[in-house]
Amino acid sequence: MSQIERVAIVGGTHGNELTGVHLVKKFQQHPNLINKQSLETLVLLGNAKAITEGKRYIDKDLNRCFSNQDLQNPNLLSYEDKRAKEIKQILQPQNQSFADVIIDLHSTTANMGLSLIFCEMHPLLLSLAAYLSSINPLVRVCINPQSKEGGFLRSLCELGFVIEVGAVAQNVLNAELFQQTEQLIYAILDYFEWCNQGNIPQINSSLTLYQYISTIDYPRDERGEIQAMIHPHVQFRDYHPLNPGEPIFLTFAGKNILYEGVSTVYPIFINEAAYYEKGIAMHLTQKQQKVV
Amino acid sequence: MSQIERVAIVGGTHGNELTGVHLVKKFQQHPNLINKQSLETLVLLGNAKAITEGKRYIDKDLNRCFSNQDLQNPNLLSYEDKRAKEIKQILQPQNQSFADVIIDLHSTTANMGLSLIFCEMHPLLLSLAAYLSSINPLVRVCINPQSKEGGFLRSLCELGFVIEVGAVAQNVLNAELFQQTEQLIYAILDYFEWCNQGNIPQINSSLTLYQYISTIDYPRDERGEIQAMIHPHVQFRDYHPLNPGEPIFLTFAGKNILYEGVSTVYPIFINEAAYYEKGIAMHLTQKQQKVV
Repeated sequence: MSQIERVAIVGGTHGNELTGVHLVKKFQQHPNLINKQSLETLVLLGNAKAITEGKRYIDKDLNRCFSNQDLQNPNLLSYEDKRAKEIKQILQPQNQSFADVIIDLHSTTANMGLSLIFCEMHPLLLSLAAYLSSINPLVRVCINPQSKEGGFLRSLCELGFVIEVGAVAQNVLNAELFQQTEQLIYAILDYFEWCNQGNIPQINSSLTLYQYISTIDYPRDERGEIQAMIHPHVQFRDYHPLNPGEPIFLTFAGKNILYEGVSTVYPIFINEAAYYEKGIAMHLTQKQQKVV
Repeated sequence: MSQIERVAIVGGTHGNELTGVHLVKKFQQHPNLINKQSLETLVLLGNAKAITEGKRYIDKDLNRCFSNQDLQNPNLLSYEDKRAKEIKQILQPQNQSFADVIIDLHSTTANMGLSLIFCEMHPLLLSLAAYLSSINPLVRVCINPQSKEGGFLRSLCELGFVIEVGAVAQNVLNAELFQQTEQLIYAILDYFEWCNQGNIPQINSSLTLYQYISTIDYPRDERGEIQAMIHPHVQFRDYHPLNPGEPIFLTFAGKNILYEGVSTVYPIFINEAAYYEKGIAMHLTQKQQKVV
């Protein structure tokens, strides 16, 4: 395997997700914290203007602006389209990949703990995930193959992935999640350092993966107004099984709406604030075991 | 005591506090739910434009625009200043009070449960609070005497108060809190109906009150950037005692900052997202018992 020479850590791709913003600011002030002998690290604030304004974004979601097509389109002139081109220029100057790894730091109002979101089952990322799970049982691993065409920042390099932590409200810092995320980043950098030195920790383990199936929207009326809320039996129960016939939503009138799928699924991103406007009440995933 | 003839219920004074928004929409669609024989009810969405945009406010905090001075100032032309004048016109046409009671529905990222916030210790409100506490132990009662000059919507009438529910993230609906708030409103309307009918429930009780003392800001550097987070020992522990010498903040470097007051206080509004920009990490209160 080739060396991991450069790791980019991005915070504030969404300006109101403060964990990543303040971790990146901490690393900017104390670069020694993320110094490694065998690799360079770069830290970067994603949506600079949205961070200042305490918003997810100014004109559009920056984390949907990184498709090749959009990055090459000179007619896209929103703040985020321009910022995406700047970030690509930093991470891939002259289309040479600066970063071998991109770690994109996010937070969510869903109860996702410490989630790693990968685009695909890259063997190196899976063995990294097995190591991280072995040292912290809060670590969860999701595979979301949609993301390559979705314009996500992490798709700029093969080893790009998201750390998604929650539950935490937008524009709020939770000290415990801040410290857990910080420790996770140090563990990731340690792992890549050991890889570069040929000392990969041998984790003999069966890794639990949550593989994306689809999204579910809230029940809505003809004008698009939501008609129901996440059911209390599902709220904050990300990664727990949801079986056919179990309640999934509760209408404003207090009536249960049942999950009508044919098999057990594992919802994640349950009640993420920023997904109401995207028509997403939760992601459904399949749970699977993989020997790494 | 004079009759309570008209009760106004306002939701969405802050556009991203969805519990109140959707309760008001429910009552608009089903006015029978809040019909009472002896009193009229009016429901109103506060910051209409901010609700549409999913923001707390457009130009400035609507819930600071209701001081007499500002309401009479024709030069204040922000969206919220204009909306405040419209709301006053609805609730006090020709300066005649339409509403004897205003219930202003808010939510917070702090763990406030079901909090009632009064401007002063009005005997009727205290006996209402004693009744509500007796049927739901999650109900808490705060007295914030600052609020009369603060331009709060509730200051438009003597019996104006806030229901503040949490913890819930901005732009998120929590079904349990929605239903608890709804039941609380029905109980309040029942109580006023009984008052009008001369059947006030006799609650022989010692009511616990949390009386506002002051606010505390986050530690900040010379540029105003916060340097610490709410300490994990304090996070979500609204209404719990904080003693001198106990940790209150945790710096980004992981160092405890201790509370240096001289006596035990009871923090509330701990880590409210919208208060970072106001320079408020929490409110400090004194706990007291009052026989009602």
